[in-house]
Amino acid sequence: MTLLADLLSTVFDRRYRSGPAARDDSRPLPDLASALVSASGETSGLALARSYLDRFEQLDDGEKLAVFHDLAEAKNIDPTQVRNTLAAYEADPSKATYRAFMAAAEPPRQELIRRLNQVPGATARLVRMRADLLRLGRGDPALQALDLDFRHLFASWFNRGFLVLRPINWESPAHILEKIIAYEAVHAIDSWDDLRRRLQPEDRRCFAFFHPAMPDEPLIFVEVALTQGIPGSIQMLLAEERAPLAAEDADTAVFYSISNCQAGLASISFGNSLIKQVAADLSTELAGLKTFVTLSPIPGLMRWYTAQEAPPPIDTSEALRATAAHYLLKAKTEGAAPLDPVARFHLGNGALVHAVHAGADTSEKGMAQSAGAMVNYLYDLGKVAQNHEKFATEKTVAASPEVRALAAGAARAQA
Amino acid sequence: MTLLADLLSTVFDRRYRSGPAARDDSRPLPDLASALVSASGETSGLALARSYLDRFEQLDDGEKLAVFHDLAEAKNIDPTQVRNTLAAYEADPSKATYRAFMAAAEPPRQELIRRLNQVPGATARLVRMRADLLRLGRGDPALQALDLDFRHLFASWFNRGFLVLRPINWESPAHILEKIIAYEAVHAIDSWDDLRRRLQPEDRRCFAFFHPAMPDEPLIFVEVALTQGIPGSIQMLLAEERAPLAAEDADTAVFYSISNCQAGLASISFGNSLIKQVAADLSTELAGLKTFVTLSPIPGLMRWYTAQEAPPPIDTSEALRATAAHYLLKAKTEGAAPLDPVARFHLGNGALVHAVHAGADTSEKGMAQSAGAMVNYLYDLGKVAQNHEKFATEKTVAASPEVRALAAGAARAQA
Amino acid sequence: MTLLADLLSTVFDRRYRSGPAARDDSRPLPDLASALVSASGETSGLALARSYLDRFEQLDDGEKLAVFHDLAEAKNIDPTQVRNTLAAYEADPSKATYRAFMAAAEPPRQELIRRLNQVPGATARLVRMRADLLRLGRGDPALQALDLDFRHLFASWFNRGFLVLRPINWESPAHILEKIIAYEAVHAIDSWDDLRRRLQPEDRRCFAFFHPAMPDEPLIFVEVALTQGIPGSIQMLLAEERAPLAAEDADTAVFYSISNCQAGLASISFGNSLIKQVAADLSTELAGLKTFVTLSPIPGLMRWYTAQEAPPPIDTSEALRATAAHYLLKAKTEGAAPLDPVARFHLGNGALVHAVHAGADTSEKGMAQSAGAMVNYLYDLGKVAQNHEKFATEKTVAASPEVRALAAGAARAQA
Amino acid sequence: MTLLADLLSTVFDRRYRSGPAARDDSRPLPDLASALVSASGETSGLALARSYLDRFEQLDDGEKLAVFHDLAEAKNIDPTQVRNTLAAYEADPSKATYRAFMAAAEPPRQELIRRLNQVPGATARLVRMRADLLRLGRGDPALQALDLDFRHLFASWFNRGFLVLRPINWESPAHILEKIIAYEAVHAIDSWDDLRRRLQPEDRRCFAFFHPAMPDEPLIFVEVALTQGIPGSIQMLLAEERAPLAAEDADTAVFYSISNCQAGLASISFGNSLIKQVAADLSTELAGLKTFVTLSPIPGLMRWYTAQEAPPPIDTSEALRATAAHYLLKAKTEGAAPLDPVARFHLGNGALVHAVHAGADTSEKGMAQSAGAMVNYLYDLGKVAQNHEKFATEKTVAASPEVRALAAGAARAQA
Repeated sequence: MTLLADLLSTVFDRRYRSGPAARDDSRPLPDLASALVSASGETSGLALARSYLDRFEQLDDGEKLAVFHDLAEAKNIDPTQVRNTLAAYEADPSKATYRAFMAAAEPPRQELIRRLNQVPGATARLVRMRADLLRLGRGDPALQALDLDFRHLFASWFNRGFLVLRPINWESPAHILEKIIAYEAVHAIDSWDDLRRRLQPEDRRCFAFFHPAMPDEPLIFVEVALTQGIPGSIQMLLAEERAPLAAEDADTAVFYSISNCQAGLASISFGNSLIKQVAADLSTELAGLKTFVTLSPIPGLMRWYTAQEAPPPIDTSEALRATAAHYLLKAKTEGAAPLDPVARFHLGNGALVHAVHAGADTSEKGMAQSAGAMVNYLYDLGKVAQNHEKFATEKTVAASPEVRALAAGAARAQA
Repeated sequence: MTLLADLLSTVFDRRYRSGPAARDDSRPLPDLASALVSASGETSGLALARSYLDRFEQLDDGEKLAVFHDLAEAKNIDPTQVRNTLAAYEADPSKATYRAFMAAAEPPRQELIRRLNQVPGATARLVRMRADLLRLGRGDPALQALDLDFRHLFASWFNRGFLVLRPINWESPAHILEKIIAYEAVHAIDSWDDLRRRLQPEDRRCFAFFHPAMPDEPLIFVEVALTQGIPGSIQMLLAEERAPLAAEDADTAVFYSISNCQAGLASISFGNSLIKQVAADLSTELAGLKTFVTLSPIPGLMRWYTAQEAPPPIDTSEALRATAAHYLLKAKTEGAAPLDPVARFHLGNGALVHAVHAGADTSEKGMAQSAGAMVNYLYDLGKVAQNHEKFATEKTVAASPEVRALAAGAARAQA
Repeated sequence: MTLLADLLSTVFDRRYRSGPAARDDSRPLPDLASALVSASGETSGLALARSYLDRFEQLDDGEKLAVFHDLAEAKNIDPTQVRNTLAAYEADPSKATYRAFMAAAEPPRQELIRRLNQVPGATARLVRMRADLLRLGRGDPALQALDLDFRHLFASWFNRGFLVLRPINWESPAHILEKIIAYEAVHAIDSWDDLRRRLQPEDRRCFAFFHPAMPDEPLIFVEVALTQGIPGSIQMLLAEERAPLAAEDADTAVFYSISNCQAGLASISFGNSLIKQVAADLSTELAGLKTFVTLSPIPGLMRWYTAQEAPPPIDTSEALRATAAHYLLKAKTEGAAPLDPVARFHLGNGALVHAVHAGADTSEKGMAQSAGAMVNYLYDLGKVAQNHEKFATEKTVAASPEVRALAAGAARAQA
Repeated sequence: MTLLADLLSTVFDRRYRSGPAARDDSRPLPDLASALVSASGETSGLALARSYLDRFEQLDDGEKLAVFHDLAEAKNIDPTQVRNTLAAYEADPSKATYRAFMAAAEPPRQELIRRLNQVPGATARLVRMRADLLRLGRGDPALQALDLDFRHLFASWFNRGFLVLRPINWESPAHILEKIIAYEAVHAIDSWDDLRRRLQPEDRRCFAFFHPAMPDEPLIFVEVALTQGIPGSIQMLLAEERAPLAAEDADTAVFYSISNCQAGLASISFGNSLIKQVAADLSTELAGLKTFVTLSPIPGLMRWYTAQEAPPPIDTSEALRATAAHYLLKAKTEGAAPLDPVARFHLGNGALVHAVHAGADTSEKGMAQSAGAMVNYLYDLGKVAQNHEKFATEKTVAASPEVRALAAGAARAQA
């Protein structure tokens, strides 16, 4: 462990040692980008990269948009070049011709982004740059194409093999914890005391993925409650006055909140690995854990419900549960995927729809989005792979017999 | 620092937790590769990736070669596909058409390598896989093209921004130190006592680059001696009985050995950054350091010399020094770069040829390769960028007036 | 550093590994104590010690008092034994006779406390035990004598050489930070936001002493503001809306709050070392710092003032300042030490009374204790030893000419 | 863990920050000692302490002896003072009278040693000072008495509760490993390769105790072999060419070497705790371990044997084993303890004599001290406390029936 601790302490040092701001190169950013892409040496490259990042961050949105357009258009592939190098490669497949094709088939902006990343601390800055791009580029095909290049590189850099899973607890640094408060997207954390209630009791856990090049930034985190039996109410789960359970008495781990932290890492998927690794780690630590389950919102339920032509009444718990089950199992996107985004995520991971609860989230948000209904997705570690496979290939939604029966009842009611 | 230490300790844990070997998938490796590239979920992907790596490592060279040929041929780009998607993109440049082109223009083997890298600890294994490829693929154009894909991904993963510079000293872990002994390529370390002499005295330093995903493997390291004045003999520098200098009395840092550690990272350049960062760090720590210089071998001198038609005699120190100076400044490759590989490296970094010494390396190897001559390359931090620029653009070799005069003398002698 | 990090991680592990509670030994605690003191082996000793601590902590105050009385009386020295062994030692001074005297001259309760300390994590529990003793033993000579034994051992265990100075900042663990909030004794921290304002800006610092055997418990901490010039108002220093100063532009470090954290370590002095080490460390880090000064309350001023027979009016700032100066320089305890406890502390450390301010602490507490007056004690690192010496030997209070003049004015006014 | 890592990194820093040597106080060391004991402030105290330690370490043995005599005589208790303060305390037992007695009953040299320990890094220096004292003070009653004071303080500082158990392995720092090589006292380690064979295979372990104030110095370490069954030959256990066992296949942990590292910590017992904690930790890690046993030398066998009047022949393995068993069970010191020091240690810890082997240590040393015989002491964790108790109170030596029978046979042979 010792060298590793050292390694990372260096990363840290470097943040503070990155030195005085480079004297700015006053060329327009597009020229700077061109110079950087063609710079032959690392030395001059680093100075150019530093200038580019420093200056980009001081731009207003209009100026940033101009920079993105420069990347999207002037630093794009040259189709003629692609065609010519491809032809040469086909005629004579050699190292040299393949290298030429590779160079032509990849837009120069990819090399630009890689070179920007050589600046110490640049990774987090590039993630923020992409967040700007996603925000400003909506609906613009050229900028959406540009985003594919960012995404391609980020998928490689944020490869699962490079991520590090860390427990987050009451002994974690405050500057990390305040990010947990800020990023919690499902059930808001409204104070440090609220945070402590989610971290300190021995029946509460939290885990996050980090990347060594962004050690101060959680990428995604999951909050877990250890319980006896599967809970059906988030308010009871988070009640202030509850008595904590001894961790070794728990039989169930409930993933009750999963939050992505970085807008600039949209579509780089981590949640899948996170849940499975946390489940695996917890079952190693606590032999009593037998069930791994979520307590999840049904964010699209009421939107879908009110859009129905003749929606059945949901004036009883039972009716609401049946409608929710039906929605989760039958409501589909045009591509035949589940309409509910949270359902898509967990079913895609290999979970199954285990139970549906009424009166489970009585917060304002919970009532608005799903009339208070929530759902447990069950991660049966022995069946996850098979569920996933069927879902991926045949679009089969796995569900417990009970939920299946509920949904069938709803269908009958509706019929 | 605290979180960082934690982060890395996790990396470590994971190595040992990666769990029992996956049950091997018995399909032929080419089929496994195809399945992995097209796997839609991470779960099944991870199991396939693990099997592929495990099984590859048990192959003999002939079998490995077959695997590489599968990658080179069956997992190559499909030119028709590239052409078609390119045409579609040109006709209607949108996110979808660009995505299709990107997918077609990148050979599936790149995605394969990225997916293999999701296995914990895979990065080091892929580096070894490339070492096999370089060894087995020599002279085969298809395999050399395949290597460009490995290299392309490694350049992205081993981006300077992800590397960590660490001092190596007598408090470093033994399993790292034994690798320093094993990898030292310039002046062999023949025992732990010899190693201690290069690490423990306060006028000796060693630094290495590491990558967080391979924390037990130095990538490249440099050995430094702190001296008063510029030394002209490696045997005197490394003499067993010498009295160490107080570090704060040194005015010169001598980079007397730079060794790459990973055959599988050939052509991924780190040395450039390493020397400059070490020079910068040392000058921060020790205000007295004014001169940063190498004491370098001239590995190609005698090979070049004996190939000359009418070589001038080198029967005196002066004659040898003049010949060496001439060789360093004037002997060129077909591409007009310096013939000597070490000269190419340092001049490419922006150093200049500062002084040439006879009788500087009297070891058997030193006598054989350069008749005992060595050279100091000077890193003048204020001029490195400019030297580099001139070298890169005009092939100008920077040298001190003294060396320039020596070389001129040699030219006259030869004329 | 590596081994050290390891060392401490072990300490941590051990806290959680200390295992299930020992099965309680049901003998009365006095008998348990006797058994523990005479236990010959560590094994049985550890079990006894664990039982004793576990059971003590479950007692109510009356029962604890009984335990303390047992220690004070039944585990006290035996004067006859002391006299006899002393006589034997005088008659024949040998290793054996000296050993017998040592054993007799030390009350068995000291050995008891040392043996209790063998239980992992016991040190913090013994500190809490002494806190109980101080609280319950007030006014009882036998218990006060018992306390001297605790204090004697604690002074040895909490020796300055064993303490570790740590910066406390916004990257510190939350469970440490909440203790800073709880223990701040001078200017209350009323929320996590307030805490952040004292830790995160680059012109704010905080340092604490820790002991390796109680790594989760700060022993004492000091809060520091970096400023230009010496401040005369705590409210201005802590204003929410102020703009932080660049740390390297500061010329002054202001120690504006020092808080002891452990009631059970009363009279074990750390503050002295803390201020001096922090001053030394800060001056190494920030070359611009020239002045090290406190901004301190004058807690005893109004109590003393209202006790005067014919107090001069303090209806102007000037009058208040003169009165405060007079109080600080002239008001004495029976032992001729300064009457004000904060003054005693800083003057005893070698500081001097540098300036007195009216309207400097307008909080309710500040107005009540000193009518809003505060004082700067100056730590002139070059004169601290000499000031200390004069204060210790001649009771001389060092003060600036300005304060001296103020105090003289007050004396005239009073005359 | 995070704070802890920080804590220790500070300790480390401090070693290098302890700053330039204090300007030496030129007073004779006895005067310096007196000044230090009576210094009222920490500031001047620290400077005096530093001078004292620095100057002591430069003395030759004769001068050191003089310093020790000063401590033994001039800094001893004053019997009159003891008697007077004792009388005053008896007459009026109060805090003040008890404090006065405590001060008089403790020799000033104890306070001196505590104050010396305030210097950063002093603990290790004081341990070396005691090593000098033990070496130079042999046979001198006054110096032996002085040693009791060192020992008294060290027992308090090196309390089990302050020690940290660390695994030593091939990833440990080289400067620690070279100390393991140097300190191994039982079966010499003759090279780094030999060391690696004892640390790196998965069936080999090593653990050491450290003290946070001496993080670079192991205090005591134990080497462990994981085996199937109880071994009867050290040469087979350490054979170079053996195939390592998978750790989880082992049923037995063999403590085959325990070495104290610090001469200056003689008589401060750690070995007892070390074996038991290591056994507890290993049994947690490896569920298959059922037997914890030593493979120990019998250092006193031949010395005792050759001193017998009519020793029975030991010309067969059986005769040798019987004689060894007899020696271990029956040969006693004057105080009725086992004559063999290693037997005393393990039996005192609660182990029992499990088996005796001939031809078990065929090294020169093994043949000389015990004609090649070795012994297994068995730590039966369920009976250790009871064995210890009987040994401590009734001097009963626990042994297996087989060893008991062997010893009885020897007795018959001898009779």
